[in-house]
Amino acid sequence: MAQTQEKESQTPNAPTTVDMKDIVSLCKRRGFVFPASEIYGGINGFWDYGPLGTELKNNIRDLWWKAMVVTPPIGPDGQPLQIVGVDSAIIQNPRCWEASGHIDGFNDPMLDCKETQKRYRADHVFVLIPRNGEGPSLAFDKDAEDDEVAQRLKKLARGRPKSDYNRTTLDKLPFEAFVNIIGPDTKTPGTLTKPRQFNMMISTGGLSVTGGEETKSYLRPETCAGIFLNFKNVVDSSRVKVPFGIAQIGKMFRNEVTPRNFIFRTREFEGMELEWFCHKDEAPMWFEFWFEQRKKWWQSVGLDMTRLHYLEVPDGDRAHYSQRTIDIEYRFPFSGEGYDELEGLAHRGNFDLTQHQAFSGTKLEYMDPVTNERYLPDVIEPSLGLTRALLTLLCDAYTVDPGRPSGMYMNFHPSVAPKKAAILPLTAKEDHVPLATKLYMDLREHYAVDLDIKQNIGKRYARQDEIGTPFCFTIDDQTRADQTVTVRHRNTMRQERIGMDHVAAYIAAEMKKIS
Amino acid sequence: MAQTQEKESQTPNAPTTVDMKDIVSLCKRRGFVFPASEIYGGINGFWDYGPLGTELKNNIRDLWWKAMVVTPPIGPDGQPLQIVGVDSAIIQNPRCWEASGHIDGFNDPMLDCKETQKRYRADHVFVLIPRNGEGPSLAFDKDAEDDEVAQRLKKLARGRPKSDYNRTTLDKLPFEAFVNIIGPDTKTPGTLTKPRQFNMMISTGGLSVTGGEETKSYLRPETCAGIFLNFKNVVDSSRVKVPFGIAQIGKMFRNEVTPRNFIFRTREFEGMELEWFCHKDEAPMWFEFWFEQRKKWWQSVGLDMTRLHYLEVPDGDRAHYSQRTIDIEYRFPFSGEGYDELEGLAHRGNFDLTQHQAFSGTKLEYMDPVTNERYLPDVIEPSLGLTRALLTLLCDAYTVDPGRPSGMYMNFHPSVAPKKAAILPLTAKEDHVPLATKLYMDLREHYAVDLDIKQNIGKRYARQDEIGTPFCFTIDDQTRADQTVTVRHRNTMRQERIGMDHVAAYIAAEMKKIS
Repeated sequence: MAQTQEKESQTPNAPTTVDMKDIVSLCKRRGFVFPASEIYGGINGFWDYGPLGTELKNNIRDLWWKAMVVTPPIGPDGQPLQIVGVDSAIIQNPRCWEASGHIDGFNDPMLDCKETQKRYRADHVFVLIPRNGEGPSLAFDKDAEDDEVAQRLKKLARGRPKSDYNRTTLDKLPFEAFVNIIGPDTKTPGTLTKPRQFNMMISTGGLSVTGGEETKSYLRPETCAGIFLNFKNVVDSSRVKVPFGIAQIGKMFRNEVTPRNFIFRTREFEGMELEWFCHKDEAPMWFEFWFEQRKKWWQSVGLDMTRLHYLEVPDGDRAHYSQRTIDIEYRFPFSGEGYDELEGLAHRGNFDLTQHQAFSGTKLEYMDPVTNERYLPDVIEPSLGLTRALLTLLCDAYTVDPGRPSGMYMNFHPSVAPKKAAILPLTAKEDHVPLATKLYMDLREHYAVDLDIKQNIGKRYARQDEIGTPFCFTIDDQTRADQTVTVRHRNTMRQERIGMDHVAAYIAAEMKKIS
Repeated sequence: MAQTQEKESQTPNAPTTVDMKDIVSLCKRRGFVFPASEIYGGINGFWDYGPLGTELKNNIRDLWWKAMVVTPPIGPDGQPLQIVGVDSAIIQNPRCWEASGHIDGFNDPMLDCKETQKRYRADHVFVLIPRNGEGPSLAFDKDAEDDEVAQRLKKLARGRPKSDYNRTTLDKLPFEAFVNIIGPDTKTPGTLTKPRQFNMMISTGGLSVTGGEETKSYLRPETCAGIFLNFKNVVDSSRVKVPFGIAQIGKMFRNEVTPRNFIFRTREFEGMELEWFCHKDEAPMWFEFWFEQRKKWWQSVGLDMTRLHYLEVPDGDRAHYSQRTIDIEYRFPFSGEGYDELEGLAHRGNFDLTQHQAFSGTKLEYMDPVTNERYLPDVIEPSLGLTRALLTLLCDAYTVDPGRPSGMYMNFHPSVAPKKAAILPLTAKEDHVPLATKLYMDLREHYAVDLDIKQNIGKRYARQDEIGTPFCFTIDDQTRADQTVTVRHRNTMRQERIGMDHVAAYIAAEMKKIS
């Protein structure tokens, strides 16, 4: 059980003190994340990434791609693994989603409140049921805070204590019990409808699939299908041999009933998925291998590993095709004393290739060139949301520090920081600006750097703290005299002087450090 | 008129001798591009990118992004321009598409053949009309070859010569004339229906936009809208001042009636767009500036500039909002003696901000901090398809060479080549492979490189020629003795020996060369 082997998960974690409101506000103010279509009142579950959010997202994307495709890990035999990338279309032939099980099986139990017209996902609503069977039950949104629970108990149950109630979720209750439940946003019982299965795929209007009549299609709800569809094409066109991997990064769409928690659960998001194809006898070994690799990666991008938790998903809770699943979970500000999923690692067996082979009638078997064995390989899948990874790194980096003008700083690892350095002429004086511009022009060939000329230096440092720039290089009167600049370190605010010609090497060295 | 000023466009261009069939075949065989959902019979107008296509596309994406956002050009005042990126959602509030004019105006004239059920875009069908008014008119697909025209004239008009006919396109003719027209895939006149306007946006199934009832939305048909929607957010959160630019790369979708020419016209594709916001008095100057910049960029990625043509789009042919448009066109293998659009440069005025301000009721005016003038900036927009750029570079690189085993090579510039170098141990001998692996491990930290161990060296060179790898570094017996390797140059097949410790610097220097 990985869960108990991990030292990290044994560390008692204090709930983070950062409030989501502060993160959302910073994201808007500094241009990380904006509500999509904000000037039109927004659109529920969709977000746009601003200048810094886009750079941050691109950095995470590139670091994952580099770790997977450009410099894949060294395998147990001492040789680098073989991993290639693909980029498949968001819209595929609808038959693909019959094979994958998404048309029949990708459903959430959903219900409405007849009074408020609000919609809920049954497993996202918890219910307090009186232990003694007397009085109404009370339903709450999954994320309801203790305050709200206490307040509603006061109003609707004359302050009866929470300990008088049993707690469960709505999807666990028979519909007969609903008549006695007061919905999360109402005051009278019996307004909640029977949950119905709600397909989470977003459909498209009619497209002529093969040149003939038009038919609806779907926006992919995951990127892995595009990998399985191309398994044979990749084997035939590359020189890969099992075991090997195919990686993909791209957008996907889910018609979430209740998008929530900023960019944690949205309707349009980006994923990064590796499908690792191997012989079934080796699958358990590769599962452990990838679990270790994924932890190393999170450490390399600077995540506070003590905030992670590894959940060995028990029988019955796993997806039907999964022989083993570990969820890598993180304590988000909205997780309370629990955790929410950041990345999943699943042993999918050969479910997907089996299904696509059966539905398409195309042989997808791999032939081992040494043993001549023909088989459908098993798959180990590390899979995470790129946009959720971004949220995680935003939450993880947010560091309250009343001792500085900004009151906080973003503790990004240099490799993920949207700007690696800011070049600041101390004043707008004639001899500061040209030297700063020259340094900026040299550095920008290698790194995303900021040249910020105006405002007093304290305000400029504060701005760089807020966007998480690890280093500020300041040009002052001494620079012309001895060709040195001041380096200011974001986390410690410590300053030192270094030669202007050492700046690039300085940043390069810091980028590689693992904290 | 840019068209006549350009030396490049004056060069008489021979039609390229490369056949699209060869390019499509190479793309499948070597893993550049696969038909989407191929095992399910495909899906019309959608394509997947294989391992090498994905790397090639990522390289073009990154080169454009670097040229725009990371190292923007130096402006007329000698200072670097200010350009930031955004990444907006594919699905936006539907009101956005009312403002942009896409719901009412983004239509293609479409008609069907009652006999064959085939669908055509009226302006993509040309018609031969007998000059003397006698006998039927003949309709052809826009891309019909001379052979096909001659053959149908022989069958359906007793070999009457083409010179007996006037040529026009179907959208230019009144419906009364259709009764006398034989459709492109039939033998009898009068089977074509009246063209109707067909909206090119792909709609989505119901989404709850703001938490209430569900409504259909749309997949964006262009990425620029997401830039205009965030204009105010970017001004408020960044420190940009007009003139400045916002760049975006992302997927878009159009329900093309007749997807065609491989990945040239597809239903799902990626675009790269810059919206450059400036004062209207400076817009003509910035138009010229960006025209020069875009040509420089195409040269930097190794495009044969003699195959380009610059079309100054005349009044009446431009989009209604455009005050000036130049299409950068390329002679594709399917362009015959003409050209097809590769990139557009448009002066959009302040149409978009005006519309979004009016429809959203949100003030989008910019206030100049020096003059205090309040205005909606004009926009200069260089806009191209990333996937179309990829097709262009594929066509441009394909070089027939009967003198080598592969019969051809891909003449990619090192900066765009999917693999910068291949490391080849001459044999699988024990002292060749470890040295090759060591060189590979060093190089892969900086470049996408291939380590290819098995097969005879001639076959491995041939494979690298087919995928356009500029350099092969071969490790042989001499390597151990004097630490040198053989460099083989793709285009010339010339070989030379260099020190193993100079390989990285060698590649770096070649990446920067402009051919």
